[in-house]
Parts: sequence; structure tokens; C-alpha cells
Amino acid sequence: MYWVNLLRQRKIMNLFLYGIAFALIFSPAGLFANEAATDGAAHVAASFPLIFLWIAIILMLAKVSALIERVGQPAVLGELLIGVALGSLYLFGITFFEDIKTNEIIHFLAELGVVILLFQIGIESSVKTMVKVGVPSFLVACVGVILPQSAIYFLGPWLAPGLSSTAYLFLGATMTATSVGITARVLQDLGKAHTAEARTIVGAAVIDDVLGLIILAVVSAIVIQGSIDAYTLTIIILKAVAFLGGGIIIGGWLAPRFSTFFSKVHTGVGMKFAVVIFFGLVFAYLAALVGLAPIVGAFAGGLILTPVYFDEFTDPGFVTDMKTAMKEEHINGRLAEKLDNIIHTHSHRHIEEFVQHLGHFLVPIFFVLTGMQVKLAVLMDGKVVMMAVLILIVAIITKVLAGWAVGKGMNKLAIGVGMIPRGEVGLIFANMGKSMGVMDDVVFSAIVIVIMATTLITPPMLAAVFRRIQA
Amino acid sequence: MYWVNLLRQRKIMNLFLYGIAFALIFSPAGLFANEAATDGAAHVAASFPLIFLWIAIILMLAKVSALIERVGQPAVLGELLIGVALGSLYLFGITFFEDIKTNEIIHFLAELGVVILLFQIGIESSVKTMVKVGVPSFLVACVGVILPQSAIYFLGPWLAPGLSSTAYLFLGATMTATSVGITARVLQDLGKAHTAEARTIVGAAVIDDVLGLIILAVVSAIVIQGSIDAYTLTIIILKAVAFLGGGIIIGGWLAPRFSTFFSKVHTGVGMKFAVVIFFGLVFAYLAALVGLAPIVGAFAGGLILTPVYFDEFTDPGFVTDMKTAMKEEHINGRLAEKLDNIIHTHSHRHIEEFVQHLGHFLVPIFFVLTGMQVKLAVLMDGKVVMMAVLILIVAIITKVLAGWAVGKGMNKLAIGVGMIPRGEVGLIFANMGKSMGVMDDVVFSAIVIVIMATTLITPPMLAAVFRRIQA
Repeated sequence: MYWVNLLRQRKIMNLFLYGIAFALIFSPAGLFANEAATDGAAHVAASFPLIFLWIAIILMLAKVSALIERVGQPAVLGELLIGVALGSLYLFGITFFEDIKTNEIIHFLAELGVVILLFQIGIESSVKTMVKVGVPSFLVACVGVILPQSAIYFLGPWLAPGLSSTAYLFLGATMTATSVGITARVLQDLGKAHTAEARTIVGAAVIDDVLGLIILAVVSAIVIQGSIDAYTLTIIILKAVAFLGGGIIIGGWLAPRFSTFFSKVHTGVGMKFAVVIFFGLVFAYLAALVGLAPIVGAFAGGLILTPVYFDEFTDPGFVTDMKTAMKEEHINGRLAEKLDNIIHTHSHRHIEEFVQHLGHFLVPIFFVLTGMQVKLAVLMDGKVVMMAVLILIVAIITKVLAGWAVGKGMNKLAIGVGMIPRGEVGLIFANMGKSMGVMDDVVFSAIVIVIMATTLITPPMLAAVFRRIQA
Repeated sequence: MYWVNLLRQRKIMNLFLYGIAFALIFSPAGLFANEAATDGAAHVAASFPLIFLWIAIILMLAKVSALIERVGQPAVLGELLIGVALGSLYLFGITFFEDIKTNEIIHFLAELGVVILLFQIGIESSVKTMVKVGVPSFLVACVGVILPQSAIYFLGPWLAPGLSSTAYLFLGATMTATSVGITARVLQDLGKAHTAEARTIVGAAVIDDVLGLIILAVVSAIVIQGSIDAYTLTIIILKAVAFLGGGIIIGGWLAPRFSTFFSKVHTGVGMKFAVVIFFGLVFAYLAALVGLAPIVGAFAGGLILTPVYFDEFTDPGFVTDMKTAMKEEHINGRLAEKLDNIIHTHSHRHIEEFVQHLGHFLVPIFFVLTGMQVKLAVLMDGKVVMMAVLILIVAIITKVLAGWAVGKGMNKLAIGVGMIPRGEVGLIFANMGKSMGVMDDVVFSAIVIVIMATTLITPPMLAAVFRRIQA
């Protein structure tokens, strides 16, 4: 429709000019890129600018792919598909983007992006509302971990014939952890991040991650030792519980004092930004320190930071301008109230806003990179596809059923669908299983495809089931 | 004064509580950090969270160091000193921060930070005002390149006895390029970025970079071949001129069309952000492609982007709220004018604002890292110190004299002082000279110290000379 309108408005000439302009920008990039990348002596120095270009292209394509919203799909699906497209260009002889897949700096930015995303989700939530959805989240998480783990273990011989029983145990573990990133992003895109269902899913996915990591630790111990002792098991479980509980209690006490203190040191927006980011990154690090995924920590860090703690940091220029104008003009009554409201809304929004800006820069890198990891070539092997489809069906059904653990008052199907996507944690598990020799290349490829498939099918399904739920 | 007031307010107890809180946060970091870093199997996975922690600490310390502003010094000096302190902790047996110095991801973020900084400076400038200061900038740049190059070449045997004549040629080249980053940041901190002097310095430093790179290319060719042909010389010079001129002309034509086009695709703040960042990063890449420093490209990219092109992207929530309130209350006349003014100021500021937020995250990393590269241990060698002091004096005098090339109507001393700091380009040159075998370790160390010294002495000198200049 958009293009039709453009053409109707006789802007063909302009489009032609844009084409030339794009060609001018990209032709030197295309011509010289390989030269820059292979130019021996200057390689290290030249690779940074090349990464700048990669990031610029990823950001631009990710935003253009947001056009998918016009057909009612969430933007994240567009980013994943852009990723799949970029990642498959080598099939057509275009290798310019290939190095992105293995570049450590891009992987770091992607990981930082998903940490910032979970931190953002955490800021938008709060401990109070988390406790409210606490029991349903916990029930959904437990059922959503036990069902796929046991189903894949017992159905394993039919799903992927000829593996050892420890392989089925491991295969089950890779399917336990819901990737909160995809669902959270989709719900944010849909404007449904504040529904009880959304909070239940996010809460369950976080608990889920913890439970999944405990299961993995247990399964790994069984694979290595043939058994696990009660002491190690207790330590693993205690660490996880202590981190989340302790983090929320200590952090909740610390956050208001910390922000009050630093707002006295310096009131600039830079200081506000530093305090907020500091919380997110330190909690991500602390989570990793106790053996949990950094995103679990980032979420906990965001959870304890609520806009309330940042009242000391308002946009001084804007507030001063407005207050001065109101005073000079002797504004009272209803108008004063209205303007005060606007001041309140638009000076306080900043707290999430600058985390958002960092997110705008980093988060698309994560989703495009995730899409790029999909290996379309593996789909040529019928055996792999069959295995993947069967595991996928079990992976979907078991998580959807977990939605029924939520009890009354919420949309069970919506919660079950929200739990479907697997992600980073599952991929990390799969890599570990492969490196421990439990899984071969075929099983590994099948798992990667299943994880990607759960990620690709969830956004449209979530959009469909959440459409009926009031924000 | 601040601490005295705090104590007077009987907040000693609170400070004590903060101390405990900090200890709680940092003690696990200190205890487990080395374990995480040396934990063989999980090394690659564990290093990302460790980098998160490094970034968090760097950001926080950088912002706390902004307290230096209370004694009238620019914040960047605080960041550099924090860097020197962090980089010297190993002398006291604390090696936790040592790996930052060589970590490629941190170096990337620092490089991206300086690109974003120059991009920001570029956005705040415009081609029109650049042309206005064009001739003085060009004169200052030329004299500021010729003077240090020839002075160090001819005085070389007294400054650093016993080197070859090509070594003196190379040594001169490392002192030609002014590091625009330090000066630009200091002038921004001082609120003097819009003075004619500031624009002249920034303009001269950019031309200077280009001239310095041409000189380096020429000197390198002489070192390698013993001579240089007119063809190669012409190509090098043409590339630089074509890039800046062509970039500004094509980019200036392209920018308004590009932003209008993409504002039709998607009007969200994410799209605005992507378009702006795209320009900065693509220009940085294109500069590197033709053999110039990426920061030159980022500056050119920012120069062609002026807020005017982004009228299509205003903060819709704020503008709507204000317009609705004004309409509902039938506001006219002087008050309407005032409110329109506020709307205009605070909805358009966003264009620079989100680049700023990215800058808040990345720029301190660059300056702290720069500080960390200072090797205090080298100062133990009297021979190195002597050489460094002599080169430093020549490096300062020659750049200050270049200020007199500006002609009438501007503060010559202020411009000369602003040209003193050397930085990334000089360090890159020094590294090349060392790897080409022209310089030994002692000369290299001396150059690094001189570059650091020019950087450390400039902020207070700039603050002193600019205090009298009206913004």
C-alpha cells in the first residue's frame, strides 16, 4: 500500500534518485570491503571500521524490517527474518556478512543487548507486582520445566532413534528454558507488557531459567560422574535462590540510597545514566559469578530500580522553562494542573528512555545475529528435518500445557504460547552437550533448528492470542 | 566543601552505611574475579560478564571523577586521571584491571566512543559555520603541521641523540596530528563549543589529521623506498580532499532526502536513532576505506546532519500533550508564543540527545582507557624522562605558535593551546614507526609519554585561556 501511494504521488523520480544515492554509498563498500578485510598489515585496525559498517547496516535493515508491523506482525520477527536473510546470502555467493556470525565483538554487543533488554523489562516491572504473579509464575515454570524434560526423555527413542539414555536426558534439558527475550520483546511491541499474563510469562521464564540451569547442572553431573551427591545439588539450588532473593532484598534497600547519594555528587543526565547502567551491568556480572545467566541478574537489577528512586534526576532545563513560563503568566487552576501533569510525564520518562536508547542500538544486533545463526543448508537433510519437526511438536505441546498450571483468572493459552520460545540458554546447553560428546552433529543441528523454529513461530501466535487481552 | 557540608548535616552514619553497601557489592567481585578470569573451560563465556563489570566500574568512576569540575577543571581530566590510577594499580599488586588495557572489546568500545564523540561534535557544528572559519582553520592546521614536523626533524639530534635521519622524520610525523577529541570534549565541558575559537580549533584539527596522514604516508614511503613518486603522492592527497569535499556535498544533498524517506517508513524514535547512527558509522567506515581515520569520517557525517533534517521526527507524545492543552484552554498571544518556544526547544533537542546517551556510555571508556595506557614505570628511567621533556617542549611551542596563523579577530593563544593535545593518530603513527624498525623501545616510550603529557596539560590550560572568551 505504501509503495502504491508513493508511485501514485509521482515520486518515481525521487525513488530513482534514492537508488543512485544508495548505490553511491554502498558501491565502495561492496568493492573495497574484501580488500579491507584481507589487507594483512592493517587487519586489526581495519576491522573496527568494518564492524562500524556491519552495525550501521544491521540497525538500518532492522528498522526497515519494522515495516512488518504494517501486516500486524511484531518487529522482532522482521529482525529475525532479516538475520536469516543476511545469514543465507553466502548461498548466493555474497560473503560480505559471513564474518559477523563469528565476530567476537558483534557477539559481545548482542549479549550486552539482551542484558539491556532484560534490564529494561525489569525496570518496567516491580517487585510488588512480581510477588502478585509469583505463585502462578512459579507453577507455570515448574510444570514448563518438568513436562519437556520428562516427555523428551521418555519419548526420545521415537523422536531421535539410537541415542544413549544420557543423550535423551540432555536433549530434554536443552528444551526446558524459555527464552524470555523473544516473548518480552514481542509483548513490548504489542503494548501488552503490563498485562498479568505478560508478567506471569516473564516471571515464569526467569524462574524457568534458574530451574533449567539447576537441571543442566544436575544432568551434567550425571553424565560426568554417573551420579550426583546431595551436597552439590543443595549448593546449586541454594546459590540460585540466594541470588534472586538476596539481590532483590539488598538491592531494594540499596537502590534508593545509592541514587540519592549520587544525585548529590552530580545531577547531570550523564550521572543518572551511569547509576542506572551500573546497576544493570553489576547485577548481570554477579549472576554470572554465581553461575547463572547474566540476563537473570540484569532482570533482577531492573526489578529493584523503579522510577521512584530517580525523582532527584529530572530534566532541569525543561522543568525550569515550564515553571518560569507558568509563574510569569500567573497561571492557576485547571491549566496549571494540566501543565504540571505534562511536566511530570515528560520529565520523568527519561529514566527508561536512556536505557531504551542504548537498547535501540544493541538489541537489534542480538535478534539479527540470532536469525543469522539459522543454517538453512541443514534443511536439505530429510532425516534432520524429521527429527526437528518431532522434537518441535513435543517442545510446543509441553510448554503450552504448562500454561494450564496458572489457575483461574488468566488466559491459559496465552501464557502457554508465551512459554514456547527457547533461546540463548538452550543454545548454550546444546553446545555443552556437543562438546561433552553426548550429542552428535545431527542432533545438535536438529536442536538449533528447533530453537530457531520456536522463536520464529511464537511472535505471530503471541500476537493472535494476546489481541483479545486488555493491556 | 561538599564533604564538609555532608558531615555538618550529620550524615556520617549514612556514609558509613553506603560504605558497607559498596563493600557488599564489591567484595564478591574482588574475591571471585580472578577465578572467573582463569576458569579454563568457561573462559570465553565468563569474559563477557567480566567486561560488563569493567564497564560498570569505568562508568561509575568516570562520573564520580566529575567532582573535579567543582575545582574548576574539566571532567575529561578526571576521567584521564581515573584511568592513570586504574592503570597503575598493578604497581600495588592489584591486577584486576590489567586485562582492560589489552582487551579487544574494550578497545572497540573506546574507538566507537571517540567516533560517536566526533560525530556529536559534527552534529553540533554545520558546514556553513565551518566554511566561515575555513581559511583560519586551514592556516592554523598547515602551520601546526609544518612547524612540529620540521622542528623535530632539525632539532632531532639534540632532542634524542643517536638516531637515523629517517627516525627524526618519523618522530616529527607523530607530533603533527592534533587529537581533536580531548580539546573538543574540554570545550564542550566548558560550554565554549560554539565560540569561533573552538570551531577554528576543531576545524584545524580535522584538516590537521588529514595533513598528518598525508605526511605519514609520504614519510612511510620515504622510509620504505628511499623516495616517493609524484603519482602516489597525488593519489594520497586527492583521496583525502575528495572524501571530505565529496562527503559534504553528496551527504548534504542526501541527508534531508534520506531522513524524509525513512520518517515515512517508520516515525518511531528507534527509526530516528537508526538513521542518525547509520550516518555516523557509515561515514566512519568510508573514511577508513580511503585510508583516513574513522573519526574524520564521523565528524564529516555529523557535519552534514543538522537538526533541520529531522523535523519529521519530533517527540509526538510531548508535542501532542502540549498542543492539546493549549487548544482546550484557548491559549493565545504571549503565553502561546512562550509555550511554542518550549515545545520547539524540548522536542527538537532529542536529535542530539540520543547520540549523547550512546556517548555517555562509550566516551568515558575511551578517556579512561587512554589514561590507563600511561606507563608510570617508564618514568623511572632518567634518560627517557629527559628525552620526553625536550620533545614535549618542542611539541607545545610549535603548536602554540601555529595559533598565530589565525590572523586578527580571534584569541591566538587560545587556539594555539587548543592545538597542543596529540592522541590516537599520534599513537598509531608511533606504533607503525616501532613496527617498521625506525624507532626503538625508548623512543617509543618517550613518544607515548609526550602524547599523554600533551593530553594531561591541555585541559587546565584551555580552561584558563578560554575563561575570558564569550560563548
